Amino acid sequence: MKTKVMKFGGSSLSTAQKIKDVASILVKQKGDLNNIVCVVSAMGDTTDELIKLSGEVSKKNNRREMDRLLATGEMISIALLSMAIDDLGCKAISLTGEQAGFKTAGRHGFAKILDVDTTLVEKKLREGYIVIVAGFQGVNAAGDITTLGRGGSDTSAVALAAKLGCDCEVYTDVEGIYSVDPRIHKTAKKLEHLSYLETMEMANLGAKIIDPRAVEIAQKYEVRLYVALNSTKVIGTYIDKENNVEQSIISNLSIQDNILLVDKKLREGETTAELFSKLAGKDINIDVISQKDIGKDRYITFTSLIDEKDLITDISEDFHFKENVSKVSLIGNGMRNQPGVAARVFELLNANGVDFYQVSTSEISISYIVDTINTNKIVKLLVKEFDL
Amino acid sequence: MKTKVMKFGGSSLSTAQKIKDVASILVKQKGDLNNIVCVVSAMGDTTDELIKLSGEVSKKNNRREMDRLLATGEMISIALLSMAIDDLGCKAISLTGEQAGFKTAGRHGFAKILDVDTTLVEKKLREGYIVIVAGFQGVNAAGDITTLGRGGSDTSAVALAAKLGCDCEVYTDVEGIYSVDPRIHKTAKKLEHLSYLETMEMANLGAKIIDPRAVEIAQKYEVRLYVALNSTKVIGTYIDKENNVEQSIISNLSIQDNILLVDKKLREGETTAELFSKLAGKDINIDVISQKDIGKDRYITFTSLIDEKDLITDISEDFHFKENVSKVSLIGNGMRNQPGVAARVFELLNANGVDFYQVSTSEISISYIVDTINTNKIVKLLVKEFDL
Repeated sequence: MKTKVMKFGGSSLSTAQKIKDVASILVKQKGDLNNIVCVVSAMGDTTDELIKLSGEVSKKNNRREMDRLLATGEMISIALLSMAIDDLGCKAISLTGEQAGFKTAGRHGFAKILDVDTTLVEKKLREGYIVIVAGFQGVNAAGDITTLGRGGSDTSAVALAAKLGCDCEVYTDVEGIYSVDPRIHKTAKKLEHLSYLETMEMANLGAKIIDPRAVEIAQKYEVRLYVALNSTKVIGTYIDKENNVEQSIISNLSIQDNILLVDKKLREGETTAELFSKLAGKDINIDVISQKDIGKDRYITFTSLIDEKDLITDISEDFHFKENVSKVSLIGNGMRNQPGVAARVFELLNANGVDFYQVSTSEISISYIVDTINTNKIVKLLVKEFDL
Repeated sequence: MKTKVMKFGGSSLSTAQKIKDVASILVKQKGDLNNIVCVVSAMGDTTDELIKLSGEVSKKNNRREMDRLLATGEMISIALLSMAIDDLGCKAISLTGEQAGFKTAGRHGFAKILDVDTTLVEKKLREGYIVIVAGFQGVNAAGDITTLGRGGSDTSAVALAAKLGCDCEVYTDVEGIYSVDPRIHKTAKKLEHLSYLETMEMANLGAKIIDPRAVEIAQKYEVRLYVALNSTKVIGTYIDKENNVEQSIISNLSIQDNILLVDKKLREGETTAELFSKLAGKDINIDVISQKDIGKDRYITFTSLIDEKDLITDISEDFHFKENVSKVSLIGNGMRNQPGVAARVFELLNANGVDFYQVSTSEISISYIVDTINTNKIVKLLVKEFDL
């Protein structure tokens, strides 16, 4: 008997009818002689509503109580989904993160999974239950509920699949993973296969399909992932160790908006290390960095996020900011064996009169910092150039 | 250092502002050098909303999953209240029923408290925390969340007070317990003291002030209870072993509407015992019973609730029903030493042309089954007669 973990996000569970639809899918899968473990998120906007409510009672950020509060969202989902399956005449049992064996460590709101003790999950599977598990949550050594941070239900699902040694299917409100976000470029191609590394780069570079931590665990334990829409027969995207042999150079184009471009001339005696140590001390998110010496003067340029502007200003007054900046990234395993992608893009942008501020590259990605106003034009040029 | 348990119901916690108000009350009490344990219910209509949602996903009554679902209501309350106290600069910690040591047995939705292991509560009190406990919930031997049934938060609070050996204050949306429900009789007197027995009779006879199970536990462990409004300085009602020495005969008049009066002539060979064993087999709520033999025929009359009419009809077709019937009860410790209350009421009703169907008496109460249309008139007569 084959076991699989299926994960459904909040948008798949936002109404009573949608919960009943997911219940039908699970009962059908179970009928096909599978052992089904289903990991769920909180219904629709529940998490946002709870966060709003907490803001009304307190201006402080009490992370322990916030975790307790937010974890109720998934508890509501597992109870309702189990009832809906039961109503269809199929055995289902709900388990909280704690009952499903998720032991965590680290600070509340960003807990890390230490281990998953799947004894009870496996027992209930043997007894013929569809096991419904609350994602996003676990319990720490003190016996307190912890949450794994936004997107944590993906991580829960993959960790459970890793421990059970099975595949993990992540159902979402898109049909799979595309070469470009279909909301930005309508005729984007759906990708049937991606490697772990490509998916992680995409997730880190702004694609909001699956939590990067989930992909990292999938890679480590070689859990085969499948990302798809829950309500159609359309094939989604498989993510595993190796991409197709006949791979295209670029498999994905991702865009991150709300980038802040920061410039600073170092003061006399000030070192680059000192500057970045100050920024790190404030937990400021720093991305692409470059430095340039002109005569005796050293100029530092880096990107951060618009939200962190105040924090950066707190450090010193002599930063220069440029807003309305975006990061356009090309990602593909094929880049490894096909040098010259950066050069092709430089030529392309230059020939079309589009400027960029900074470039950064990894083994399988290349990112350009550009004015947000130019992103549409750049996307069109790149989609055409690399047949995305 | 004095310890006390304070219980706040859903109507005291229905908005963010009300939660902040309760937080202020607790911080002030704590400032008076008390050890404070606060037991809370779910916010406002949360429980009803969750029940509605469950009805939309399933027609079955899956009690295990329902308990899981409903218990989230109190978890939201404890988290928000702890945050609100923290925001005022005072240490607070939330504990679920399980963390607060509530071990239960019995069926889901109506679990009984087996024991309360207050080790963690006492540790947190010693550490200076205001301890916020989720009422209404515990955990059974299987490790599943159980709920104690409606009004269960009162029971949680009193059980905790019993184990901690302290008083229990129950805050509600009324100023205390009255001789007659002020919504029925505006000039009703507030009672400053009541005995456990009187309060239990009142709760069982329809007064919706405090859960009868809570009073039973209070009596058993001699927990002094105090029922009051949370937002004023007005003194509420104390409930303990002994009433005032100078007690009035009648301390309370309670009314229960939606009573169903049921008549049946037994068939030949049918016994009273057979009939009631059938009714018991369907878990039908039976109250005042009388039987009368006329010649060879035996007539049985009893009261039940309107809601149970269908269940009764299922047993046999030859029941006669009378609807729009109410039960008016007089309760008072003083009745013990003052016989003749029933006779006084018979005379009073007779002199004013009001008829009744049945009467039942206990040591400290007397109840009349009457037409609902006459209750206002009867209340006026009784309030005047017994100076309520």
